[in-house]
Amino acid sequence: MRQSKLFTKTSKTLPKDEVSVNSQLLLKSGFIDKEIAGVYSFLPMGYRVLDKIINIIREEMNAIDGQEIMLTALQSPQTWEPTDRWDDSKMDVWFKTELKNGSKLGLAPTHEEPLTKLMKKFITSYKDLPVYAYQFQTKFRNETRAKSGILRTREFIMKDLYSFCRNQQELDEYYEKAKAAYVRIFERLGLGDITYVTYASGGTFSKFSHEFQTLCEYGEDLIYINEEKKIAINREIFEDEILSEFGLTKADFVEKKAIEVGNIFKLGTKFSDGLGLQYVDENGERKNVIMGSYGIGPGRVMGTIVETHNDKNGIIWPKEVAPYQVHIVSLGKDEVVMQESEKLYNQLNQAGYEVLWDDRTNLGPGAKFADSDLIGCPIRITVSGKNIEKSQYEVKRRIGGDAEFIPQNDIEAFLDNELK
Amino acid sequence: MRQSKLFTKTSKTLPKDEVSVNSQLLLKSGFIDKEIAGVYSFLPMGYRVLDKIINIIREEMNAIDGQEIMLTALQSPQTWEPTDRWDDSKMDVWFKTELKNGSKLGLAPTHEEPLTKLMKKFITSYKDLPVYAYQFQTKFRNETRAKSGILRTREFIMKDLYSFCRNQQELDEYYEKAKAAYVRIFERLGLGDITYVTYASGGTFSKFSHEFQTLCEYGEDLIYINEEKKIAINREIFEDEILSEFGLTKADFVEKKAIEVGNIFKLGTKFSDGLGLQYVDENGERKNVIMGSYGIGPGRVMGTIVETHNDKNGIIWPKEVAPYQVHIVSLGKDEVVMQESEKLYNQLNQAGYEVLWDDRTNLGPGAKFADSDLIGCPIRITVSGKNIEKSQYEVKRRIGGDAEFIPQNDIEAFLDNELK
Repeated sequence: MRQSKLFTKTSKTLPKDEVSVNSQLLLKSGFIDKEIAGVYSFLPMGYRVLDKIINIIREEMNAIDGQEIMLTALQSPQTWEPTDRWDDSKMDVWFKTELKNGSKLGLAPTHEEPLTKLMKKFITSYKDLPVYAYQFQTKFRNETRAKSGILRTREFIMKDLYSFCRNQQELDEYYEKAKAAYVRIFERLGLGDITYVTYASGGTFSKFSHEFQTLCEYGEDLIYINEEKKIAINREIFEDEILSEFGLTKADFVEKKAIEVGNIFKLGTKFSDGLGLQYVDENGERKNVIMGSYGIGPGRVMGTIVETHNDKNGIIWPKEVAPYQVHIVSLGKDEVVMQESEKLYNQLNQAGYEVLWDDRTNLGPGAKFADSDLIGCPIRITVSGKNIEKSQYEVKRRIGGDAEFIPQNDIEAFLDNELK
Repeated sequence: MRQSKLFTKTSKTLPKDEVSVNSQLLLKSGFIDKEIAGVYSFLPMGYRVLDKIINIIREEMNAIDGQEIMLTALQSPQTWEPTDRWDDSKMDVWFKTELKNGSKLGLAPTHEEPLTKLMKKFITSYKDLPVYAYQFQTKFRNETRAKSGILRTREFIMKDLYSFCRNQQELDEYYEKAKAAYVRIFERLGLGDITYVTYASGGTFSKFSHEFQTLCEYGEDLIYINEEKKIAINREIFEDEILSEFGLTKADFVEKKAIEVGNIFKLGTKFSDGLGLQYVDENGERKNVIMGSYGIGPGRVMGTIVETHNDKNGIIWPKEVAPYQVHIVSLGKDEVVMQESEKLYNQLNQAGYEVLWDDRTNLGPGAKFADSDLIGCPIRITVSGKNIEKSQYEVKRRIGGDAEFIPQNDIEAFLDNELK
């Protein structure tokens, strides 16, 4: 992408009420735009990052036999009344609306009910199970406060996977598979080192659920970690009685702030009971289907990456999700510089790299380097008259370290090594 | 995909009020599910088709320099009041809702206003233009009647591209480029032969807009076509005065029913004027940005394909958008048949084909063939004991014609020829 053609620009001014690091950096760099509090648009580079996050998650969901679907935002009360979640006093994040004939509708904040209802059409026998279905779909939540940038928004894409199993053992096995898939996802997203599988309250059906918590000093959650045993515990169950099960005491843990980037939960029969999702087992007996749910918000993941990967100059994208892998910065208006830059741009595009080329001729080196740091692509290649004379490029990693000079002929080998 | 694992099943029963061909076939085949009237979920095979349609459109939008973004459904009145489209009496398809503090919000039925407002942040000079931005985003429209299946729904993904140009000439040139991209899209979607670029009313800014109308006896629109000159005219401007501009009279046209699958429109300065989107030109003068809009609904396209590609047995998907290219149907429970089928399934998957394998052992040939016809993949390969003995497969095209027997060793060459 030629930066001169990109319609966004970096900016120094921000909405007054924007207090989170993620939204400040993403707004300044032109990755997102704020529609209203807690409601953000994704602009070209922001959309690219979001799309990469989504595709990594999708690959891992397909690998554990998830079948991709897309449910609807508009929901009727009939779907939610059987589980008593239609009433605003029972679920307090509904946006409600209505049809022209006055029929009430709501915008789904989650999808257990409609998917359970849907499965009643297809699941009758034990032979129809297990089933795993997931979606990337826009949720709406009428949050009272929305001050965390894209970490907690009123409208957001969520990946929600639901499992439908015959019995506890089948659920337990799939739950472990999903947990392992989540671990892979956060590794691939560049968050593996700082993301902890965290024991949390399990509700009525199982003792524990698991959260994926990414350490971050601005996180809303408090977790307690024991590095030696690689155990993390959410504050809500950080109690002597629980800890003793792991042979530990409170003194064995360190308190950390974290952002919850994913959550997996054994739902049991709560929804199949409420909505009557049953199957006939091998012995002809009717039983409730046993469910699990597995969520990740790609937008929140993006915000978490920004919160945890930045410096005073801007964002530092992990290579797996960077909007572009390489940022070519041309210095000066010199025709030779532009020609050599274009040659490199074409060469790298053809070699399969994703390249942003700062081909703008109305900005000096300082402004261009500042933009490049703010946008945060992993590798910056500077093309200048001086370096062209020496048949070399100046290369700098956004993650830090000194600039290096790479002979022109070696640039692809260098990038292969850095990025593949 | 092993059909035994696919959670959907075909069905013979339908909701009573489902009167359109597209929704009847898509519901029967398990491609979609109805949440409420005019609101449909996409199930695994339906989602695959939708995704393929989206990707074809995306490639063509990128090819004409579209920059992909994602705007928000939730909208505040402030964005829509300047153009007088917030009031329900002015735009009658709003779904309205509100924040907990009572602030009114609406669910965007279209996105001219928010995108125009967004562009004010980035466009100041003629050097910032032209800009082309598009999205695949969920629109909400409070339709009074919703009886056309997925052709006209209350919640749907729409691809909307908007162009922002300096002057009429730049708009005119891009408009022609977009028109050509649309022609390519419908060709690639398998609708090229029956889709007409149709002159329609242009509103206040230009004489004509253009609709892409696909001939279909169940279509809501009436168009008039002249095959010789390849001209199509929408009913709303089928008048002697207009026709004379083409050197034609009403007698030169044939009336046809059609479905509007796309629409391109020169907006002029309507929105830039209302929202104050201006730029400074080469001479330092402030001017309104000149806009165009270009829409396609992937769901409606899917419905149109079903309406125009079916027979009494089911859907006949064009190869470009079929959920799977090949449907392997194994006859009987014989172990050799299942082994040979699995070998073929693995072989074709490895060769890069998308394969649905009917590996179900509880159904006879009649039921399996009926399902295969209903689902409508382009090529059906039947694996049976008799054919295995002869080292051959029985192959049948969904589009029609007799079954053929292909030697096992030639199957990939056959598919390459049919599908690539």
